[in-house]
Amino acid sequence: MLVEGKPRRTIWLKPGDPDCIQIIDQRALPHAFVIEELRSLDDSIRAIRDMHVRGAPLIGATAAWGLYLAAIQLEQENKDIEHLRHAADRLRAARPTAVNLAWAISRVMSRLESEVSCLAAAARSEAEAIVEEDVEICRMIGVHGLSLIEDIATRKPDRTVNILTHCNAGWLAAVDWGTATSPVYQAHAQDISVHVWVDETRPRNQGASLTAWELGQQGIAHTVIVDNAGGYLMQKGEVDLVIVGSDRTARNGDVANKIGTYLKALAAKDTGVPFYVALPSPSIDWEMTDGRQQIPIEERSADEVTHISGYREHGGLATVRLTPSGSRASNPAFDVTQARLITALITERGLCDASESGLTGLFPEQLKFPA
Amino acid sequence: MLVEGKPRRTIWLKPGDPDCIQIIDQRALPHAFVIEELRSLDDSIRAIRDMHVRGAPLIGATAAWGLYLAAIQLEQENKDIEHLRHAADRLRAARPTAVNLAWAISRVMSRLESEVSCLAAAARSEAEAIVEEDVEICRMIGVHGLSLIEDIATRKPDRTVNILTHCNAGWLAAVDWGTATSPVYQAHAQDISVHVWVDETRPRNQGASLTAWELGQQGIAHTVIVDNAGGYLMQKGEVDLVIVGSDRTARNGDVANKIGTYLKALAAKDTGVPFYVALPSPSIDWEMTDGRQQIPIEERSADEVTHISGYREHGGLATVRLTPSGSRASNPAFDVTQARLITALITERGLCDASESGLTGLFPEQLKFPA
Repeated sequence: MLVEGKPRRTIWLKPGDPDCIQIIDQRALPHAFVIEELRSLDDSIRAIRDMHVRGAPLIGATAAWGLYLAAIQLEQENKDIEHLRHAADRLRAARPTAVNLAWAISRVMSRLESEVSCLAAAARSEAEAIVEEDVEICRMIGVHGLSLIEDIATRKPDRTVNILTHCNAGWLAAVDWGTATSPVYQAHAQDISVHVWVDETRPRNQGASLTAWELGQQGIAHTVIVDNAGGYLMQKGEVDLVIVGSDRTARNGDVANKIGTYLKALAAKDTGVPFYVALPSPSIDWEMTDGRQQIPIEERSADEVTHISGYREHGGLATVRLTPSGSRASNPAFDVTQARLITALITERGLCDASESGLTGLFPEQLKFPA
Repeated sequence: MLVEGKPRRTIWLKPGDPDCIQIIDQRALPHAFVIEELRSLDDSIRAIRDMHVRGAPLIGATAAWGLYLAAIQLEQENKDIEHLRHAADRLRAARPTAVNLAWAISRVMSRLESEVSCLAAAARSEAEAIVEEDVEICRMIGVHGLSLIEDIATRKPDRTVNILTHCNAGWLAAVDWGTATSPVYQAHAQDISVHVWVDETRPRNQGASLTAWELGQQGIAHTVIVDNAGGYLMQKGEVDLVIVGSDRTARNGDVANKIGTYLKALAAKDTGVPFYVALPSPSIDWEMTDGRQQIPIEERSADEVTHISGYREHGGLATVRLTPSGSRASNPAFDVTQARLITALITERGLCDASESGLTGLFPEQLKFPA
């Protein structure tokens, strides 16, 4: 998507330097656009763990490229495949909730376990395939989601379609297009008038800092709101549909996504607003039969709640403390929205019910792994 | 309640200086404890409008004292009662949602309209009565709410009672005790182990800055969470009950409270957690028959969403921008929680259903004003 009018992706092999992966350091957005270089496995782990990159698809892509960097090191230092298995374990432990991380690592590792030489070349080829597939998956999510927006635009021809989203499931969370935002970008490209309510998404404010920024860069009308406001807007009829992303979707259609998603799903149900989850199939955990009970929820540092960073006029970036110095804080990073609250899932193969039968209807090859 | 071990109220006549009202400037909390002097009607309006004081009961008390300051000016400058009527109009317009403001102004004005002289003395007497009544109302809310906490403590004798609250309905929102916090303070005084989940309450963070501070000053265990987290904690069984305050309660039991309250009520309903609203009777609008449709919702400045203030280590207070400079923001300050989501209302006369019959059962004198 566009950054200052120029097409960009979130991760790429540095031109002319095949030992280097480049990413956007998303911690600096929206106040600065910083490109960071990853030159080692450790750089990749740090980028995932400390959230220079985030978003389920992008975490998976970064892990795949991290194994490529580890494979380069293996070849340079004559280490054996055990080095890569250890690298895979360390990458897998960097974030617990998004299943794409484990998926991408397994995919690259099963390719590498069957190679006898040229491991780096094989890892590169697999990482490139994962990246290109992610772009196509996200594009297709947009194609299928577009129909939902078109339907509303057709019924309300003189009205802007108001879409509420939580956190960032935009192109910054993937390689390009995004998941929840892909239908929005495609509607905008079709000259449908869209407006996005952007939940700021405390504590890390990925909505206010990332989603608002990327929508602004594409020229799409949007308004930032606090996470508390979405229910009120739905009560007032100012939201036509909700689209969010997913960090992990269980076989039963339960969806783990950024903390607070569950509250918006409840409000949508209560007010009759359709609630959609856009998800690439690699974020489906086919072996998990009950998302609410089984998906592990990451507990992050209390500092993310007690302190916040932003841009100080005439002073650059600054971090301020919000709470009394003696007060504790707790910071669960995700919650699980049960399938019963979800109108439909939007995947690269089309829309389906949030249920095992809905998902396996689109992905019949998964019927071979009974719950 | 206690501030650094010393009992305080939120508003008082300055000792030895009867032309001056003192308040705590709550904008500086939790980082500094600042006492501010109000010496004129304009000072009082500014304190209400710019939220040096906030909370429905305290807004009412401040307006009453504001009329006292206007009455002093009237006597000094030989103005007539029209001066006070104009003062009342200006005070009433300072904040739109809390009904205590209009209630306190009407009460003082009807006293003053019947006085021929000594208007300042009459205004002082009425303001003092409002203040003392508020303290007693809040104490009695605590007495009645305590029974709810005791019940849970009895059923779970070895467990701490976990209470979630939103915004600040503490003593800082009233004169003393608070509304939602009064049962908590009284349980703590009875040696019941309580722990409070404090919603930070964006955009103004009254939970993180005021509720956390006042609980800490009383030595009550508490944990600050982002507004997104409460639903997850309820899903996990980590919330025994929710108690919030109310800015205005309609005759049908609908409750206007800080934006985001509706979302917590939905989560409580969905997870079977009891959801209580603590309210002093002056915040009941007996003439409003449908809160959801009729209560006016204040839209505040977008700056409260796009910027945030906090304490900078080694640098004092600072304000930072959170959003891209080109992004719009919207800031509705309250939402309405429908009676169907409320387990019970806690008033100074006891608990009742959130309904017209529940409310008029406790306040039968209001039956004379049929809907």
